[in-house]
Amino acid sequence: MPDSMTMFRLEGLPDFQQGDDLAGSIICTLEAQDKVLKAGDILVIAHKVVSKSEGACIDLAQVTPSADALALAKTVNKDARKVEVILSQSKRIVRAVKRPDQQEGVLIAEHKNGYVCANAAVDESNADHPGQLILLPEDPDLSAQRLCQRLSRHFSCEIGIVISDTFGRPWRLGQTNVAIGLANVPAVMKMEGELDAFGRPLSVTAPAFADELAAASGLLMEKSAKAPVIVFRGLDWPITQSSSQDLIRAQSEDLFK
Amino acid sequence: MPDSMTMFRLEGLPDFQQGDDLAGSIICTLEAQDKVLKAGDILVIAHKVVSKSEGACIDLAQVTPSADALALAKTVNKDARKVEVILSQSKRIVRAVKRPDQQEGVLIAEHKNGYVCANAAVDESNADHPGQLILLPEDPDLSAQRLCQRLSRHFSCEIGIVISDTFGRPWRLGQTNVAIGLANVPAVMKMEGELDAFGRPLSVTAPAFADELAAASGLLMEKSAKAPVIVFRGLDWPITQSSSQDLIRAQSEDLFK
Repeated sequence: MPDSMTMFRLEGLPDFQQGDDLAGSIICTLEAQDKVLKAGDILVIAHKVVSKSEGACIDLAQVTPSADALALAKTVNKDARKVEVILSQSKRIVRAVKRPDQQEGVLIAEHKNGYVCANAAVDESNADHPGQLILLPEDPDLSAQRLCQRLSRHFSCEIGIVISDTFGRPWRLGQTNVAIGLANVPAVMKMEGELDAFGRPLSVTAPAFADELAAASGLLMEKSAKAPVIVFRGLDWPITQSSSQDLIRAQSEDLFK
Repeated sequence: MPDSMTMFRLEGLPDFQQGDDLAGSIICTLEAQDKVLKAGDILVIAHKVVSKSEGACIDLAQVTPSADALALAKTVNKDARKVEVILSQSKRIVRAVKRPDQQEGVLIAEHKNGYVCANAAVDESNADHPGQLILLPEDPDLSAQRLCQRLSRHFSCEIGIVISDTFGRPWRLGQTNVAIGLANVPAVMKMEGELDAFGRPLSVTAPAFADELAAASGLLMEKSAKAPVIVFRGLDWPITQSSSQDLIRAQSEDLFK
């Protein structure tokens, strides 16, 4: 295991719209700064630029709320069209909450891809225009794999990709970035069978490597700036056929539903 | 905001026992490697070395289980003395769970300091000898402040300290490090009132800065090696009168109890 690593933020990326070539933009932006990707680099990419370039966005003006959405919208004081979009992205609503001090409440939802998060990850911030909602990419692992193939081929080396979103936590305040799409990067490092520093088995230790990377990216990823790509360099990690699904606790193991 | 940062692991620290001078050891180990701490450096320190040097450990042989502990021990197939220690560290048991495939179950507990985690953070790994349990430091913020003062004074610059532990997450697999003690380092970066890259208010964005640091430390902190101190260099952060309590969601806001 190396004893140090560096992270840098890729500055100067453009805005993205449906059909834009995100991988091409990353390559051009790196090369304009005389930077290259090296073997073992990992890029954490905020999902919004992936979603936008893939067209995973929707305008509220196009949405007609269902009766379910209208009812739920009253409970949490949300635009019923926004609730309709959240329902369309969800397997189920875990909890609908509006505290007295909140103007607009929150729908804790199980996203159709399995992530449990606020409002099924449907978001207005960094949208191109008011009334636009940004969704998660349709298949974030596939998006990560495509980006990874393009970048690995261009720079003639194997890299890893983590696509991230920003989630709250049930028992802790503030948000951290988590991994929602993976290519090459292990979701969880398996340490079962290894020993601790004193020779006893580390039976239940399984660091969530991809989420550690995502959370770390938040140290350099400013929401208020256009800095959606963070490069990690110097880590030693095994190239792995992985999926963001490997980070999702099965409903049968959910202690809190 | 800087566009890059580095992290390095401090190698070569000794084992720690009650009464050992952790700050002094960190200073000696750094200086033996011709390293110094610089203004703005943040050290993430695994709580186990803090707990051990403060004597926050207990031997099972000294523990007599209560009737409550005996009953709960049967439910989750744990040593009743271990359950007694977990109860002594807890405000309440949130859930007692043993799945059929588990030999020993888990007690999700609200630690007396407010953290919700497995077994009230009572842990056997990296203990000095079988039968020893390691607890959290009695007052992790105070421990962090003392370390911070010693190190800042020695190196004549202001640094930050995060004491970390490794927690599981309700809906996601694998563990990440979280912040349980803070000195100088903001728990959460307040971004309310700021605007996103497209000029709209970032009303609910509050990155959990201390937890981002803790999670990132896991990228270089090996459980199976004696590497409990990670140094972050190059971040721009405001020195803040902070507390790990600022990361704990109030029970009134707990959507999941």
